[in-house]
Amino acid sequence: MEKKKIKAFAPASVANVGCGFDVLGFAMDKVGDSLEIELTSQAGIQIQAIQGQGNLSTDPEKNVCGVVAKAMLDKLNHQGGLNLQLTKGILPGSGLGSSAASSAVTAFAVNELFNRPFTELQLVEFAMLGEKLASGTAHADNVAPALMGGFVAVRSYEPLDIIKIPFPDELYCTVIHPKIELRTELSRNILKQQVPLKTAIRQWGNVAGLIAGLYSDNYELIGRSLTDYIVEPVRSLLIPGYARLTEAAFLAGALGSGISGSGPSVFSLCKGKETANDVAKAFQEKAILMGLPFDVYVSKISKMGCRIIE
Amino acid sequence: MEKKKIKAFAPASVANVGCGFDVLGFAMDKVGDSLEIELTSQAGIQIQAIQGQGNLSTDPEKNVCGVVAKAMLDKLNHQGGLNLQLTKGILPGSGLGSSAASSAVTAFAVNELFNRPFTELQLVEFAMLGEKLASGTAHADNVAPALMGGFVAVRSYEPLDIIKIPFPDELYCTVIHPKIELRTELSRNILKQQVPLKTAIRQWGNVAGLIAGLYSDNYELIGRSLTDYIVEPVRSLLIPGYARLTEAAFLAGALGSGISGSGPSVFSLCKGKETANDVAKAFQEKAILMGLPFDVYVSKISKMGCRIIE
Repeated sequence: MEKKKIKAFAPASVANVGCGFDVLGFAMDKVGDSLEIELTSQAGIQIQAIQGQGNLSTDPEKNVCGVVAKAMLDKLNHQGGLNLQLTKGILPGSGLGSSAASSAVTAFAVNELFNRPFTELQLVEFAMLGEKLASGTAHADNVAPALMGGFVAVRSYEPLDIIKIPFPDELYCTVIHPKIELRTELSRNILKQQVPLKTAIRQWGNVAGLIAGLYSDNYELIGRSLTDYIVEPVRSLLIPGYARLTEAAFLAGALGSGISGSGPSVFSLCKGKETANDVAKAFQEKAILMGLPFDVYVSKISKMGCRIIE
Repeated sequence: MEKKKIKAFAPASVANVGCGFDVLGFAMDKVGDSLEIELTSQAGIQIQAIQGQGNLSTDPEKNVCGVVAKAMLDKLNHQGGLNLQLTKGILPGSGLGSSAASSAVTAFAVNELFNRPFTELQLVEFAMLGEKLASGTAHADNVAPALMGGFVAVRSYEPLDIIKIPFPDELYCTVIHPKIELRTELSRNILKQQVPLKTAIRQWGNVAGLIAGLYSDNYELIGRSLTDYIVEPVRSLLIPGYARLTEAAFLAGALGSGISGSGPSVFSLCKGKETANDVAKAFQEKAILMGLPFDVYVSKISKMGCRIIE
């Protein structure tokens, strides 16, 4: 028997984690999007309300929740419809997996409503349809952690292969979201399509080190493996004060830092909550000095992905 | 008090393991080089004999053992000298870490003779001097596993950072050494110095998967992560029958295959000794069909690196 109505939550997430560009992502705690979803006898999907941050369309064909939900109803060959009410905790364009959280929470909630007809991997695939709508590319490095929680590696897309990576208990992230507009197109076009082999080797040396550090609870190894030699050097040019922010984080004890998603948010990984709070203060001081409007988040890397909250 | 004389062994090793080009290597069992080394009151290094495979110089300035030993005596500011007798179990130019085994066993044995004045990382650095003599490049992805055993990742060179990666107990390798001459220069020059970013991302996705598979004893993940999208497609062109050999290994149950070092040896990773033996048979059949002279080795991935044998 289907449930009639539920409310679910999906966390914000950090993708493009350091050296793991396009491959590694992790879920944050607390911050995220929530969705109330109700089965209706009437066919079709209605987005009744969108509360919170951003200015998104309620047209189900132009909204990631609508697109994900419709694909799932079609797959289930379900005759009825759905009413959705979305509450955005993550500002679109922040680099914190805003569209991914909305897509993931929809995939999760619909699956729960129908008593879990789909596998976790199928839910990732449905949620990727939302990413495709939002950014033109069906990437999985935000939706997978948003759904599954923790650290994940998207090893391959054809076939889709997603690996959960264990991580140390006291691993925190501090994120600053400088409230500037970053043109996604620019942040994509600035990337060089060819990279020197030598640089690529350094990068996958770091990927090996980062995964080993996560498995072996070796915080120092995580920190020194985080460096991205390929994307960060160019994309960071688009983020005002990037070098000052990451230097301040380093001096405050962060293990390492990087760009969250395609920016403008900047994240640091930290050992323990105290250091994460110190890094938050360092971020705040720098941002105030630079006169940037900003939000700062301190979060444990969360083992939980999507969950029912009502 | 220094020991007077010891005999030590260093295993063969496979470097450039699949996607981990220039970063990952592992130690084999049994096959390797052994070195008898004796302290002498007379200054200078004498290479008294080289037995076994290959045709190497006994001039200590042109032999990796001589170069490594001299650097260590200089560092120790030792006035006496050393007599060396080397037995080569690995043919130079096979792609199985022949110069690395000789360099590693020298670094290890000298350190033992003097009651271990050096750290493991220092031994790797001394052994890298031998690699520099042999190939012009002081790479560490053979000497590190030859010294330390097991699977290792060379995360970075500046500073040198070597990470031991645990691996499943039943992980075997089967290696075929087709006895052809491969011009090292050609095998180096054939590499493209620029790689597409998209391909590099697939490669480090596989590195993430391979390290995760090794940590989590997930043989299937190891197998599907092994693929090298960058170097193997070009270098394999220099190895006659490469595609037929790796296909035969796959059909015989191998998890995956790749070029060992810069070739011409080809390795497969296998779950269990039985499969490794099946792969050995498949290699033999193909090599005989193709009329290639060859050696085949079946080996557990060895936890042991250099050791004293007498």
